[in-house]
Amino acid sequence: MAVDKAADYANYFCTYSFLYHQKEMLSDRVRMDAYHNAVFQNKHHFAGKTVLDVGTGSGILAIWSAQAGARKVYAVEATKMSEHARALVKANNLENVVQVIEGSIEDISLPEKGWFFLVFFLDVIISEWMGYFLLRESMFDSVICARDRWLKPTGVMYPSHARMWMAPIRSGLVDHKKDDFDGAMHDWNGFVEDTKTYYGVDMSVLTKSFAEEQRKYYQQTSLWQNLHPQQVIGTAAVVKEIDCSTASVADIVEVRSNFASTITSDNTRLCGFGGWFDVHFRGSKDDPAQQEVELTTAPSVHDSTHWGQQVFFLHPPIRASEGDNLSLSFTMTRSKENHRLMEVELGCQIKCSSGKLLPPFNKKFYIE
Amino acid sequence: MAVDKAADYANYFCTYSFLYHQKEMLSDRVRMDAYHNAVFQNKHHFAGKTVLDVGTGSGILAIWSAQAGARKVYAVEATKMSEHARALVKANNLENVVQVIEGSIEDISLPEKGWFFLVFFLDVIISEWMGYFLLRESMFDSVICARDRWLKPTGVMYPSHARMWMAPIRSGLVDHKKDDFDGAMHDWNGFVEDTKTYYGVDMSVLTKSFAEEQRKYYQQTSLWQNLHPQQVIGTAAVVKEIDCSTASVADIVEVRSNFASTITSDNTRLCGFGGWFDVHFRGSKDDPAQQEVELTTAPSVHDSTHWGQQVFFLHPPIRASEGDNLSLSFTMTRSKENHRLMEVELGCQIKCSSGKLLPPFNKKFYIE
Ligand SMILES: Nc1ncnc2c1ncn2[C@@H]1O[C@H](CSCC[C@H](N)C(=O)O)[C@@H](O)[C@H]1O
Ligand SMILES: Nc1ncnc2c1ncn2[C@@H]1O[C@H](CSCC[C@H](N)C(=O)O)[C@@H](O)[C@H]1O
Repeated sequence: MAVDKAADYANYFCTYSFLYHQKEMLSDRVRMDAYHNAVFQNKHHFAGKTVLDVGTGSGILAIWSAQAGARKVYAVEATKMSEHARALVKANNLENVVQVIEGSIEDISLPEKGWFFLVFFLDVIISEWMGYFLLRESMFDSVICARDRWLKPTGVMYPSHARMWMAPIRSGLVDHKKDDFDGAMHDWNGFVEDTKTYYGVDMSVLTKSFAEEQRKYYQQTSLWQNLHPQQVIGTAAVVKEIDCSTASVADIVEVRSNFASTITSDNTRLCGFGGWFDVHFRGSKDDPAQQEVELTTAPSVHDSTHWGQQVFFLHPPIRASEGDNLSLSFTMTRSKENHRLMEVELGCQIKCSSGKLLPPFNKKFYIE
Repeated sequence: MAVDKAADYANYFCTYSFLYHQKEMLSDRVRMDAYHNAVFQNKHHFAGKTVLDVGTGSGILAIWSAQAGARKVYAVEATKMSEHARALVKANNLENVVQVIEGSIEDISLPEKGWFFLVFFLDVIISEWMGYFLLRESMFDSVICARDRWLKPTGVMYPSHARMWMAPIRSGLVDHKKDDFDGAMHDWNGFVEDTKTYYGVDMSVLTKSFAEEQRKYYQQTSLWQNLHPQQVIGTAAVVKEIDCSTASVADIVEVRSNFASTITSDNTRLCGFGGWFDVHFRGSKDDPAQQEVELTTAPSVHDSTHWGQQVFFLHPPIRASEGDNLSLSFTMTRSKENHRLMEVELGCQIKCSSGKLLPPFNKKFYIE
């Protein structure tokens, strides 16, 4: 897909050019601990090695890589944040090891690459590329691009594996979203009446389009939520597994999956589904981690992350009971207007514990 | 200036493609009454005439023009809102008069134009092009473009005149913005300490840049406010006058002005300045309005608009008293990154009623 760079900057990169936003990520302790442990408990992957940090932001992962003993770290950042990263590298006395390069991975060339040099010279690619529900932002494309251009066949990916998860949930918010939608339509109807009365124009022909627009906004757009584990009312299922060393863009551009879940709470409401991800730092087959590290964004009381979970609500919610079996079909594609946003189709068939089959349904969602 | 169209769509047009946003404008009674009165109290400008609505949105102004008797109305809209406008025109039985054209004014050609036709054939250009503080959005450029391409020398502009206003104000919000800024810096300092302690990286080199970023956000970015008239503590001054029939882009691309204001409240705080605008519908010199109409966005108790006022705060506020004289120099230019946003420089010299001169100061602001 041809991507307009200026629009992509306005829609996407722009946010990352603010220290405020970088600080939010840098203040996520779960995220920070995972990457910190992954690097410092596996120094053998870094000591004396050549490392690339894809999307270095403030430079944090590049700096850690250097502190763990890397010979050379390339820290590539698309936005002007690169200037702050450079200042940070210098202030931490690592300018001899870390080289900050401003530009997008797709466009730049690394200094060591060239006809007379080894083409695949990187030992490690480290990157924090995960968006909401893993793939929002489509940044893993850029990591794949870097990997295929420069990583040694024996090189190691940080993280090395990633998974998408989903589980049935309950949430009172579903009722609020219904109220919001109803309120918006109530407003609209008053507006149509007023416009006819005061300004002589009949707007009622637009009511259906307005309802569609508002339904999309209030009911079909997935929401950021920090779910409590008790809101999960059934078994969680893996929707997608990614091996970061081998996955291609074709593997992630569209995610299709069938999975099942069993309701584990009694007499409850199935209000929708929560989606989250985890990533693992396991090194590579030839060069495994000494200490495997996991970063999970699953619902948690004490270890929640800035990613939270993405919630897809069902309108209306459905009564559910322990033992009900859900068969789900999941399709996630990229939005035509913006390849960093997603569209989801969720098909669901419920077989009640009583044996009764509920009518199957299909819902469309937007991850904005 | 070369404008990237896709970025301009993402930054600007996109919002207008939502009925929700059009409805906000259509629910602004002050705005609606002004345009409605302007059209229907001056039907002689419309009856049997050829009209262009620049940026028709939902189509409302085009529909009114047709209802007032226009022979033909071209309704041009850059976004997909054009489809809703077309449906609305049809539902109101005006499809023989109003022709909706999707595209930006700069790119389209009007059906009547061509080698064998009159080039300047429009009798009226109507448009609601005003952004915050009048010129934000830079949409008047598009109106000028249409006027210079198609309006008859005897044609009429709706509105015909526009003015920018400023006045000294008081507002408790200035203290909140100071607190927000202080709070953000307090957070940052804790963050720097934690990052050093837990993750071995010294971020203090970025403190200055973070403070600049936050100061810009909390203290230098003008705010939307619905000011109470009592918050205005001095005489309001006209900053800029625009004759819509003759103004060129060069006249508005940069606004430079010197003006004065006298404090009219006793023992008060000068917290900053409020900026607003008004427009007038006076017809043209040769073909004046039968009934002149004004649309003002000045601070008001009962007639406030969705434009509110733009507020530029002074940090810290200054004590002021009745009779103090303010000499102001004002410069507004377009942001280099986005020609629809503005940068303001405000110079101020205060001569107290006692005769004492306070040290002059100069402040930079952003209209985002
Ligand atoms: N194709 C690309 N090329 C270069 N930088 C990219 C990129 N895609 C995303 N980025 C950058 O990658 C960063 C992702 S956020 C992670 C920042 C940092 N590594 C940290 O862990 O704190 C953003 O700063 C974004 O601007
Ligand atoms: N250059 C351009 N060409 C066509 N449409 C434009 C334009 N610049 C702005 N617009 C459109 O102008 C509209 C301005 S808002 C006003 C809408 C409508 N006339 C009303 O009064 O309610 C938006 O819908 C925007 O998309």
